[in-house]
Amino acid sequence: MGRLVMKFGGTSVGDIERIRNVARHVAREVANGNQVAVVVSAMAGQTDRLVGWTREASALHDAREYDAVVASGEQVSAGLLAIVLQDMGIPARSWQGWQVPIRTDGMHGAARITDIDGSELRSRMEQGQVAVVTGFQGIGPDNRITTLGRGGSDTSAVAIAAAVDARCDIYTDVDGVYTCDPRIVAKARKIARISYEEMLELASLGAKVLQTRSVELAMVHRVPLQVRSSFEAPDSPNQNTQDGSGPGTFVCDEEEIVEQQVVSGIAYSKDEAKVMLVGVPDRPGVSAGIFGPLAEQGIDVDMIVQNVSEDGEHADVTFTVAERELDRALQVIGGLKDKIGFSRLISARDVAKVSVIGIGMRSHAGVAARMFSALAEKGINIQAITTSEIKISVLIDAAYTELAVRTLHTAYELDAQDTV
Amino acid sequence: MGRLVMKFGGTSVGDIERIRNVARHVAREVANGNQVAVVVSAMAGQTDRLVGWTREASALHDAREYDAVVASGEQVSAGLLAIVLQDMGIPARSWQGWQVPIRTDGMHGAARITDIDGSELRSRMEQGQVAVVTGFQGIGPDNRITTLGRGGSDTSAVAIAAAVDARCDIYTDVDGVYTCDPRIVAKARKIARISYEEMLELASLGAKVLQTRSVELAMVHRVPLQVRSSFEAPDSPNQNTQDGSGPGTFVCDEEEIVEQQVVSGIAYSKDEAKVMLVGVPDRPGVSAGIFGPLAEQGIDVDMIVQNVSEDGEHADVTFTVAERELDRALQVIGGLKDKIGFSRLISARDVAKVSVIGIGMRSHAGVAARMFSALAEKGINIQAITTSEIKISVLIDAAYTELAVRTLHTAYELDAQDTV
Repeated sequence: MGRLVMKFGGTSVGDIERIRNVARHVAREVANGNQVAVVVSAMAGQTDRLVGWTREASALHDAREYDAVVASGEQVSAGLLAIVLQDMGIPARSWQGWQVPIRTDGMHGAARITDIDGSELRSRMEQGQVAVVTGFQGIGPDNRITTLGRGGSDTSAVAIAAAVDARCDIYTDVDGVYTCDPRIVAKARKIARISYEEMLELASLGAKVLQTRSVELAMVHRVPLQVRSSFEAPDSPNQNTQDGSGPGTFVCDEEEIVEQQVVSGIAYSKDEAKVMLVGVPDRPGVSAGIFGPLAEQGIDVDMIVQNVSEDGEHADVTFTVAERELDRALQVIGGLKDKIGFSRLISARDVAKVSVIGIGMRSHAGVAARMFSALAEKGINIQAITTSEIKISVLIDAAYTELAVRTLHTAYELDAQDTV
Repeated sequence: MGRLVMKFGGTSVGDIERIRNVARHVAREVANGNQVAVVVSAMAGQTDRLVGWTREASALHDAREYDAVVASGEQVSAGLLAIVLQDMGIPARSWQGWQVPIRTDGMHGAARITDIDGSELRSRMEQGQVAVVTGFQGIGPDNRITTLGRGGSDTSAVAIAAAVDARCDIYTDVDGVYTCDPRIVAKARKIARISYEEMLELASLGAKVLQTRSVELAMVHRVPLQVRSSFEAPDSPNQNTQDGSGPGTFVCDEEEIVEQQVVSGIAYSKDEAKVMLVGVPDRPGVSAGIFGPLAEQGIDVDMIVQNVSEDGEHADVTFTVAERELDRALQVIGGLKDKIGFSRLISARDVAKVSVIGIGMRSHAGVAARMFSALAEKGINIQAITTSEIKISVLIDAAYTELAVRTLHTAYELDAQDTV
């Protein structure tokens, strides 16, 4: 019972048969007495096709026209789902971004939602009409269609849920958020509940279950979010229950998480590169001299380690950047050689970042210690460390990534029990 | 020089290469100092594809959702043309029906344009920006997208031309309106100028060059209309001139037609069927008894002939209907046998209607006489006759259609002179 926003991606609405399957999921929630809004992406392949046409039309195309063309994809899938729902006897109508309206800023192609007037949607939903809303788009200050950028439909769904004061179920190709990448750790467990903060760390670490912005938005507006599978049969017995549990993973306030784990999950990223400046004169302002120029070039630096050499007059500075940005970073630093005056510039691509994430750390000491000793036992050398309130990350040799992840998964007692 | 609306159909924008060709036509008119708006249909095949999806979604689909889905086709072609124009250095932007706005009634799927606010379009055009407008659609009183029905883009173009006070060039797959179907009469001539009234008669007789509604609209708002070919090279020397002549056929006020022909064109229609009621008691109200029920069933009756038999007490009533409606018509009449009391019911599908059209008839006597004698000379029997102010139609045996058309084309001196 309640108000619910259901979001389905492109593969879930890839053809009419799949759209019927989506409609059955919707029918189930309606039958359970929910007021439902559905947010859909374009049919799989359509967006790529439309984007291809705009590229063929011109290499440098007007982002406003690009938006007008590409946004048509959701217009189609939303209309078709509304038709299928009506065909099943469920009152429904499609809503395009400008009809709701979903107002955004003027950043065509990568717009941000600024305001949603949910009053009309809400009253229709209260009358029992399912609102099928086009994801990924809105209307800009210039009264023209804007798109939110790839993956924007998650954000649309959360924003609409906030606007109509509803829960939000994101249907995706996985059945929830796991303690670790199941492809690496066979004993990875599906997490029943995870806090917004933890989900943000996981998302930003490349667990591509949810778009980062959608999690931020959910956190700000306290929208209860569930990640669940769109492939599970609509009539499967494993469904949302009155008490707010469900088949997937709930992203919510930490207060709502009864039994908090010290560590909720292990994440890793191989898209890392290390840069080391050897023999940097150890004087004030040298760090600014290094990282200022990088920032100006829009290169994000992640981990930073600085250790003073024996003579006490020089330091070695190590930092990491996204692997795709390594070359640009080296260019920038190379141009600063005389200014900074380092003796050697070393870089490496074969590094990986492994992180343990958990709001429990705040209240538990020794979390980091356990991490370091567990890795040490396996003879895994730590090249750099960064910590946040709910995350500890270490940089290691990429070859040890899987070993490190499995080791930590076990060390923090996240392994699933073998069900006999 | 002036303000111009150019309309291109689906085949003309069938792919990016063709869209580039359309852009070259636009570029030429802009170079000639015109303020230009372009009205486009969906890329060929797209509309059918979208319609197919709605059918697959449900046999009985909500016309409002159908419109939302199908209207996306023009949204795409308009955006792409705007991009191509910009790529050629021509300022342009796309406009969707709801953005202009093009207001229509609520008849989703077959809406009629009620009002167009051309102020915004006009000011942009005056600033030198080409307005690329989606044809075939508008926005209804319910703030939802409506479509005008197939072929509606011609109507969109004329309506927009009226709203921004512009001329209108309809680019199509023929280079103009002919005195007769060139496939039948080799000596058919392209007509330089034809009156709205004559064009209406031709259109309604199945010369599918222009949609009837668009001609009506042009006549009401006195929009100068030109039918011209989209296949002619954009840089061909044969172009619009300052004095308002051009490569195609102009549809305009008869006052603007300097040398009026008595007869402008010969049209024919094989989609005819004849129904004859023999021995109908000749008493008042009998006609109403026949044609009332047909009208109630929405069956359009075209020609009607009634002649009293020798005894003066009975009459034979003959009328024609569209061939596709013959069976329904016979059903209706059959059910009235006792009420009307005719002795026999005869019908025939092998009939054709041949018409001569010309505003000149008004002022010239003997036009009909010449028609009848010309047909008589060829031994073609006339089964029925109807006349309007500017049209004379006869019903004949379908086998004689081509002969009749050629004969009349010569009789009214419409044959092209053999250019030596």
